[in-house]
Amino acid sequence: MKKNFEIEMKVRDYECDTQGIVNNANYLHYMENTRHEFMYSLGMTFKESHGINVDPVVVRADLHYKIPLTGGDIFISSLTVERKGAKIFFYQTIHRKSDRALCCKGTIEAAILINGKLSRGDFYDEKLKDYL
Amino acid sequence: MKKNFEIEMKVRDYECDTQGIVNNANYLHYMENTRHEFMYSLGMTFKESHGINVDPVVVRADLHYKIPLTGGDIFISSLTVERKGAKIFFYQTIHRKSDRALCCKGTIEAAILINGKLSRGDFYDEKLKDYL
Amino acid sequence: MKKNFEIEMKVRDYECDTQGIVNNANYLHYMENTRHEFMYSLGMTFKESHGINVDPVVVRADLHYKIPLTGGDIFISSLTVERKGAKIFFYQTIHRKSDRALCCKGTIEAAILINGKLSRGDFYDEKLKDYL
Amino acid sequence: MKKNFEIEMKVRDYECDTQGIVNNANYLHYMENTRHEFMYSLGMTFKESHGINVDPVVVRADLHYKIPLTGGDIFISSLTVERKGAKIFFYQTIHRKSDRALCCKGTIEAAILINGKLSRGDFYDEKLKDYL
Repeated sequence: MKKNFEIEMKVRDYECDTQGIVNNANYLHYMENTRHEFMYSLGMTFKESHGINVDPVVVRADLHYKIPLTGGDIFISSLTVERKGAKIFFYQTIHRKSDRALCCKGTIEAAILINGKLSRGDFYDEKLKDYL
Repeated sequence: MKKNFEIEMKVRDYECDTQGIVNNANYLHYMENTRHEFMYSLGMTFKESHGINVDPVVVRADLHYKIPLTGGDIFISSLTVERKGAKIFFYQTIHRKSDRALCCKGTIEAAILINGKLSRGDFYDEKLKDYL
Repeated sequence: MKKNFEIEMKVRDYECDTQGIVNNANYLHYMENTRHEFMYSLGMTFKESHGINVDPVVVRADLHYKIPLTGGDIFISSLTVERKGAKIFFYQTIHRKSDRALCCKGTIEAAILINGKLSRGDFYDEKLKDYL
Repeated sequence: MKKNFEIEMKVRDYECDTQGIVNNANYLHYMENTRHEFMYSLGMTFKESHGINVDPVVVRADLHYKIPLTGGDIFISSLTVERKGAKIFFYQTIHRKSDRALCCKGTIEAAILINGKLSRGDFYDEKLKDYL
């Protein structure tokens, strides 16, 4: 079974919209934050990466919304990772903590740009080795 | 050919992130705004809809990111619509206005909840008839 | 000395803008979240409050920006509270955790609407008594 | 009377929160966007400015919230500008278009950083001359 990375987060009220539930776009924010925390955990920061002109860019995000989170909900945001050719795939889920209900799951495909050009995708292989 | 709906928008600088480009989550905002403007154009507001307990909910969003928009870019956000059973599918694109480059395209699937329960999906058929 | 309430938060990269620092508007989000967490800690949720038609509304926000936070920074968001007539004043600060540098401080004035009308402001006195 | 700059904007539903009204932080976004559009109108873009290491930074924002905007509202966002020593003051208002009701007004103080250091504030004098 693949190693997964997870963090706990809590819905902030301003992330909810008029329907009283978390706005769809915020799940992309949660998932982005989880990927960045994952990178931090491996000793890579988004800022440093950008500073040396290595920019992971999302080329596809495919999200399934199951059960809406609402203000104050605590949730577990989790990911596993896979490399296929030049792309890195993040398989991400968001579960409500109280009952472990699946709220949102998504596949995020990222490409690695080096100096603005598409790389072969192996830039992070050494760093990611425990997860691949 | 299917009738499409489009609006023109302009990137606001605060929508860009450290990489200097529009953050991925904001494309979901742009697309949501386009669907709501589309609904307005048909005489349905999101607020009124919510007030009578009819809530369109996004169940899936599948986005392909092509070329990033950046601060000040003007873009055309366009959609066509299709009903398949209980779901409404929105096919949405975002093109940079200056050169008509495709920046992002996505398929958004929505279900219609009436009093919190999944409906048969025909609620908007009369309203949407010019687009179906 | 007045009792204060504080929480620890961490900057998410998407909260930073093209300048590489937290966008000004997000400090209002951080401070709102702190007030809501403060209310939670007293047994009041924003949702429940809204459900019984009691809506605290911000009538003024006066923020001083000192040192910008950047991606990954951990910070302490703190508040004290005072009631003056019909208004509640929140004195809020945001300090970077690593060196306790003051990043932002603000005064937020809130009025309490009950059924949409301005109240005398004593609605929360019992709940807030340890902080007033 | 001082020359003012104004733009028309429309509330997007995702900018509203659980209370069904525009979240307070978004007024800072609206006002920022208005200042940036003002700069664009004078031939200065935020990106270019940042590129040559000239960064206007907000050091204070003092906002008074009067009447909340809600989803779909069209509003006029207006500003006048004044220079006092090293600082530029923007006096900004947001009026609902339908009845010209004042929704929010604020004073935004900005300092001009050149290569990260506080400047004397005269960098934009020539550009701003029609408004000072």
